[in-house]
Amino acid sequence: MSRLEYSSKDIQGFEQRYRARFINSLGGYKSLSLIGTRSRAGNTNLAVFNSFFHIGANPPLFGFIVRPDSVERHTLSNILETSIFTVNHVREEFYVAAHQTSARYEGNVSEFGAVGLTEEFKPGYYAPFVAESEVKIGAAFRQRIDIAQNGTVMILAEIKYVSIPEASLEEDGYIDLEAAGTVTCSGLDSYHRTERIGRLTYAKPETMPQLIKKPGIE
Amino acid sequence: MSRLEYSSKDIQGFEQRYRARFINSLGGYKSLSLIGTRSRAGNTNLAVFNSFFHIGANPPLFGFIVRPDSVERHTLSNILETSIFTVNHVREEFYVAAHQTSARYEGNVSEFGAVGLTEEFKPGYYAPFVAESEVKIGAAFRQRIDIAQNGTVMILAEIKYVSIPEASLEEDGYIDLEAAGTVTCSGLDSYHRTERIGRLTYAKPETMPQLIKKPGIE
Repeated sequence: MSRLEYSSKDIQGFEQRYRARFINSLGGYKSLSLIGTRSRAGNTNLAVFNSFFHIGANPPLFGFIVRPDSVERHTLSNILETSIFTVNHVREEFYVAAHQTSARYEGNVSEFGAVGLTEEFKPGYYAPFVAESEVKIGAAFRQRIDIAQNGTVMILAEIKYVSIPEASLEEDGYIDLEAAGTVTCSGLDSYHRTERIGRLTYAKPETMPQLIKKPGIE
Repeated sequence: MSRLEYSSKDIQGFEQRYRARFINSLGGYKSLSLIGTRSRAGNTNLAVFNSFFHIGANPPLFGFIVRPDSVERHTLSNILETSIFTVNHVREEFYVAAHQTSARYEGNVSEFGAVGLTEEFKPGYYAPFVAESEVKIGAAFRQRIDIAQNGTVMILAEIKYVSIPEASLEEDGYIDLEAAGTVTCSGLDSYHRTERIGRLTYAKPETMPQLIKKPGIE
């Protein structure tokens, strides 16, 4: 296969939107979720994010990146006001609506109504979940880290509540995201369904990993 | 579909490995890459990571999480020693070898030889690339952020070099990762190939996004 190589200087020379598409593609496939928030005044907000990253399981911590000069600013201000937000996986049935939450709606328009997704409230949870979503997480703000290099903000948060389809949970704690219909994305605008290649056993130096078989499957 | 719900307390009560599998599944599909490093003494190291997240395109910045008490400690110490490392996408042909880099090899054993992947050196680059990888990134260390909550370390880095197959680059800067054979992962040990649903046009409030068609395709 013929190959292309780029230096730092080449990348700096790219037209701005071209560079954004190119650099956003380099991270590989990404977590795709809708973050639901609600301002102290009661306005709900929904925004698509693809920078969710796992930090640790005990306590259950994750992070994501917010661009305060974008439509994501409501997500940031609501989280800083109320500390509570939701993370909702995206299914193929509503990936277009999820993408559409990134449009710059004016004023207090809620993206829920604008894109046709349904707010779902749970007792003790101020922020809205997405009713159409199969994997739903309730989260609490823990720390804000400002990235000096480009003015973005990293939010660290703790998982406080989880709701999943019973059929997606495997015996060992793994959640089968294909059973839950979760999709993935790449670049700025590409969406993908997945097909499992395999689960592998814990890696040890002496042996190569083996495929994990489901109970009852030869 | 019947559903399962978990509170913070439920999650705290999980057995440790069960909790790790469960919480690691909640982020959705993840970036899957091999990070190549080389110590000042010349020993190469290769480790699989799935926490790569995009921070910005100008300058091209990304981050990832390292657990200093794990096999990942060599990756961290080599990056802090030399500032230079590589990020290499994983293809289905070698996903088992990629997984196997997470085994605890003793002393100065290089994971390249141990798992059967090939070191590739490029002029001016101290760290090794993975020859079998189709999407290769050369990166420079920019900042270390210690996460007080659980002792993990976040590395922020800048993309300085990119090598991709010519056939994967689309006209607008998007890199077609399916053309490059990049795979994704979920949880701690599950690997997946993907199938594109579609690329969508930039979201605007007045209209719903449309599918982006490749030139010449109706």
